[in-house]
Amino acid sequence: MKSRRNVYLKMKTLAEAREIALNHFHLSSVLASEPVSVPDAVGRVLSEPVTARLSSPGFHSAAMDGIAVKAAATFGASEGRPRRLTIGLDAFYVNTGHVLPENTDAVIMIEQVHALDPQQIEIEAAAFPWQNVRKMGEDIVATELLFPRNHVVTPYCVGALLSGGIFSIAVKERPRVFIIPTGTELADWHHTAVEALRPGQILETNAYVMGALTEAAGGRYTRHDILADDLENIRQAVAAAIEADFHIILIVGGSSAGSEDYAKEVVSSLGAVLVHGVTIMPGKPVIIGDVRSKPVIGIPGYPVSAIVAFEQFVDPIIRRLLGQPDRERPTIMVEPTKKIASKLGVEEFLRVKLGAVGGKIVATPLPRGAGCITSITEADGIIRIPNNVEGLKEFEPVPAELLRPLSSVKNTIVAVGSHDMTLDVLADQIKAAHSHLTFSSSHVGSLGGLMAIKKGVCHVAGSHLLDTENGTYNISYVRKYLSGDSPPGGVRLVQLVFRDQGLIVAPGNPKKIKGIEDLVRNDVVFINRQPGSGTRILLDYRLKELGLNPAEINGYETDEFTHMSVAVAVLSGSVDVGLGIFAAAKALGLDFIPVVTERYDLVIPQMFIEAENIRILLETIHSPAFKQRVEALGGYSTRQTGEIIF
Amino acid sequence: MKSRRNVYLKMKTLAEAREIALNHFHLSSVLASEPVSVPDAVGRVLSEPVTARLSSPGFHSAAMDGIAVKAAATFGASEGRPRRLTIGLDAFYVNTGHVLPENTDAVIMIEQVHALDPQQIEIEAAAFPWQNVRKMGEDIVATELLFPRNHVVTPYCVGALLSGGIFSIAVKERPRVFIIPTGTELADWHHTAVEALRPGQILETNAYVMGALTEAAGGRYTRHDILADDLENIRQAVAAAIEADFHIILIVGGSSAGSEDYAKEVVSSLGAVLVHGVTIMPGKPVIIGDVRSKPVIGIPGYPVSAIVAFEQFVDPIIRRLLGQPDRERPTIMVEPTKKIASKLGVEEFLRVKLGAVGGKIVATPLPRGAGCITSITEADGIIRIPNNVEGLKEFEPVPAELLRPLSSVKNTIVAVGSHDMTLDVLADQIKAAHSHLTFSSSHVGSLGGLMAIKKGVCHVAGSHLLDTENGTYNISYVRKYLSGDSPPGGVRLVQLVFRDQGLIVAPGNPKKIKGIEDLVRNDVVFINRQPGSGTRILLDYRLKELGLNPAEINGYETDEFTHMSVAVAVLSGSVDVGLGIFAAAKALGLDFIPVVTERYDLVIPQMFIEAENIRILLETIHSPAFKQRVEALGGYSTRQTGEIIF
Repeated sequence: MKSRRNVYLKMKTLAEAREIALNHFHLSSVLASEPVSVPDAVGRVLSEPVTARLSSPGFHSAAMDGIAVKAAATFGASEGRPRRLTIGLDAFYVNTGHVLPENTDAVIMIEQVHALDPQQIEIEAAAFPWQNVRKMGEDIVATELLFPRNHVVTPYCVGALLSGGIFSIAVKERPRVFIIPTGTELADWHHTAVEALRPGQILETNAYVMGALTEAAGGRYTRHDILADDLENIRQAVAAAIEADFHIILIVGGSSAGSEDYAKEVVSSLGAVLVHGVTIMPGKPVIIGDVRSKPVIGIPGYPVSAIVAFEQFVDPIIRRLLGQPDRERPTIMVEPTKKIASKLGVEEFLRVKLGAVGGKIVATPLPRGAGCITSITEADGIIRIPNNVEGLKEFEPVPAELLRPLSSVKNTIVAVGSHDMTLDVLADQIKAAHSHLTFSSSHVGSLGGLMAIKKGVCHVAGSHLLDTENGTYNISYVRKYLSGDSPPGGVRLVQLVFRDQGLIVAPGNPKKIKGIEDLVRNDVVFINRQPGSGTRILLDYRLKELGLNPAEINGYETDEFTHMSVAVAVLSGSVDVGLGIFAAAKALGLDFIPVVTERYDLVIPQMFIEAENIRILLETIHSPAFKQRVEALGGYSTRQTGEIIF
Repeated sequence: MKSRRNVYLKMKTLAEAREIALNHFHLSSVLASEPVSVPDAVGRVLSEPVTARLSSPGFHSAAMDGIAVKAAATFGASEGRPRRLTIGLDAFYVNTGHVLPENTDAVIMIEQVHALDPQQIEIEAAAFPWQNVRKMGEDIVATELLFPRNHVVTPYCVGALLSGGIFSIAVKERPRVFIIPTGTELADWHHTAVEALRPGQILETNAYVMGALTEAAGGRYTRHDILADDLENIRQAVAAAIEADFHIILIVGGSSAGSEDYAKEVVSSLGAVLVHGVTIMPGKPVIIGDVRSKPVIGIPGYPVSAIVAFEQFVDPIIRRLLGQPDRERPTIMVEPTKKIASKLGVEEFLRVKLGAVGGKIVATPLPRGAGCITSITEADGIIRIPNNVEGLKEFEPVPAELLRPLSSVKNTIVAVGSHDMTLDVLADQIKAAHSHLTFSSSHVGSLGGLMAIKKGVCHVAGSHLLDTENGTYNISYVRKYLSGDSPPGGVRLVQLVFRDQGLIVAPGNPKKIKGIEDLVRNDVVFINRQPGSGTRILLDYRLKELGLNPAEINGYETDEFTHMSVAVAVLSGSVDVGLGIFAAAKALGLDFIPVVTERYDLVIPQMFIEAENIRILLETIHSPAFKQRVEALGGYSTRQTGEIIF
């Protein structure tokens, strides 16, 4: 392997790069116009102003069921002096919407008409001209402007257009985006069985995400087959797309400065690189290029980088092509649940989970790596940390862009604490029956959960903390850490499950591990859980019981945050054994040596216990459907599930 | 025509009717599940929870370009004591994303590696285990829950699903809505040339609007051909739809209690009418029926009633079928620009234009009639006036549901005042070049516009007020009404156009009208403009000059609010003549007898004149493109357009 490397041009700030991306090209005059039938036009953008061909109503019409009269002929009528009118002569039955008969200019409601016989009626009040009449042109006057250029057609507009006699309109064609996924490591899910994936291969996903984002912005996309990291092949694909009728070309992957990154060379050989590298994170290695006046964008390969690059550069280009303003996400003030340091000179897009806890909106940071697609699928919002800011302070309010509606954030039960797989079941059961409600959990260990309750940043904490003095779970910890007035009113402890903890080992247990005592063996590599987790406390307790020295365990200092991560480490072969729950071992087909059955509870502040959302949570925990699914996972008992311990 | 009439069952409140509509049917278990390819699944709703099949990454991989090493083999390296490693033996070049070579657990950034020769490198710092490594399962662990049931797939989700080895998912089928437009007066635009429409016929538009709203809610629709008001035909169509595989049936029109309203009878003959009549306005005559456990909804025929009925009943039924919460529109506090009386016992959906003027959001009510589709296409928001409230007070803040984003409301130039057709041209020219900006005008006459400026509820007022003492326009009125500190800083007066005012008469001028003096003729019916309008002042001035008595004019007391409405009245034949601008006469092919050329100016508070939006407005007025289009209307001169009078 060579160590040939590109270099970044001078990096641009986001504002500089956007200025270039949006002002370099003549975006407003690129798209052609096409005719579309009005009922099919919802979401499309008018390329011409639309003026009405018809007036609506097109005639004077009755606005009520009743009789049409000439108002002047009713003047003087009163209760004492009713006026008699003759049907067909000076009074005419009309229904709502009927054309007003000639020589009439008012409608008297049917309820105010006394029918004397089929030919004669009597009224007891005068009508005034145009009462209960929809006058011609009251809604729409022929020739008036219905909608200006660049207006986006809504379902309501369909009504106004058809009423105005407009059945077909000229709209802007949809911008066409050509997406070329590149990378020798990529495999196509259409052609590769999951089982056939080799180590080092990854499924190509970015082009589909870019495609879906293109459609959401109002464009259409075509995906090229995956190209290996090969300068000439990529260059040919881009050149062909430039010849074809695409408006934007995306080269996904290879936009960085590595030895196998070719996007920059492709663009510079065909046209000009305007920007290489933007001081944002994720998304830094973006390329903005001009090839024969078409924007060619190099999109970084990490999934969140790709999304940020798309949303900052490609989305606004598509919208400008369509004559639309940039998308603006609603922003609210949120309070970070912890201090976050951020690099000066870089604008960070920090993904956060949001929750409304005790009257404020708290923001829990998600993993910051650009490789974690789940850090954006799980995010409720994005905190932008500007270039000149070193980070966020705990609880200091900052603006966050909302990724889902505030009402949905407010209907989220925020769980922070120990990880357990039954929380997934709980989330699904709640969503199934109460679709407005979301159960969102972050995994920081049992003690972390108690601290989150104390700080007032969650509604619920999952905990399995063993009191090594007396063998009880959680109670003494809650008494120790959540005494006094944090949270105000104290907490309740609700039993969720009993679960088996034990040693997770490779199938067949090749190292013949029998128990905790084997962890100190020289030929055994262990993976630990983080300090403060219930599992770590359990391990330390057993080590002490057995008189074993943690320093003798290979891997005691390496830790993971969840049971599943521990199981994955075993599965990958990088370690031989970890301590975790049976369900995690079972899920990945690993072997399991039981060590102990422990209690896993939910800690809930008393002040939330009566709230509707928590009521639904407790109801769901009590439901047979939940218990059944939990038991089916294996390694769990629900014999006391839902019981309130205190 | 008979006077057979239905009666409403006891009317329900909106809350009662929604309770029935949403809880009577077993909506959560109706929809079947169907498989869909993940890239095509955006916007669809999961019918099953989705768990990952693959971990992502599926192997330990380099998170940086650099060399992979065993961390333990680097311990002790420092600047003073660099460690030498051999490529292929204990150091391996890797690029970002590459699988970690066997027996390595860390990556050292390429920038920190000194290549001595192709085989040898040196490092000056130790690596710690797992540094710069993306561990297997860091993003997604096989078997973990990716998304719960009822989750809506987003573009981001496509990435997480494909990464987790999920290529096809089970989603809820789209609810199928059958829409039957009814009404003998209806014509189908597919089959009727606009020119062939007879008086009394109106184009059927509601079914298309209901269809578009169905699709926006996540459903699919089928539209039946228009049915005349015929009990048996409508009954057969509904019965056939019940047999077919539709989930919801809408009968549009005929839902009221009139003599030709059959929807109620159709429903009660096939099943049960659960609700007939809801205390809302518009939307009162809605029917909620149950035919063999399927919801059959009678939708009122007035377009805004139809929309309100759909959004209150059909939209939430579709969302419940899909396991989704009700749509919630964002709400903001707004200040009504005038007092609005509302009927006790009725919940009104008042459509309003919104604008951000001087730090507050002002709400200008739009026409309240259920027949005006433009009252909802032009609306930015809806103020719900509850049953137990008699109306709105001027400037007393009330909540309004937003129909477009707040950012868009804030980017609206609010014009209130006299009507002129060049304002349409201005709106279109602004939107064409500045798509984020909307120019929105309400027509209340010139004096109304000055009052709106004084009250601080608009940015711009159009005015053509003649000073009958000295023949000047606007200046003396502005001095009289906008002196002192309302608005603070005073106003500027900007010349928009000169325009011809004159008498608008039927083509060929059948009544041989030659001038103002003919308005008092016995055989001539006139239509006036509202008091306070510049045109009314002009008329009164000329009448006084000529010594004519307004009381002698047939129709002096009947007034319209715009030039186009006056022209329409002439076109419809209900009057012989009105006073208005040449452009209105020309637009409708009417004859025009010039009376005077007048000035039409824009009044703009000084405090807004430097604002970006107003700068763009003035720039647009100055543009040759605007002037050209205005001149092309006829009856206008732009010789001083854009000049600032003071």
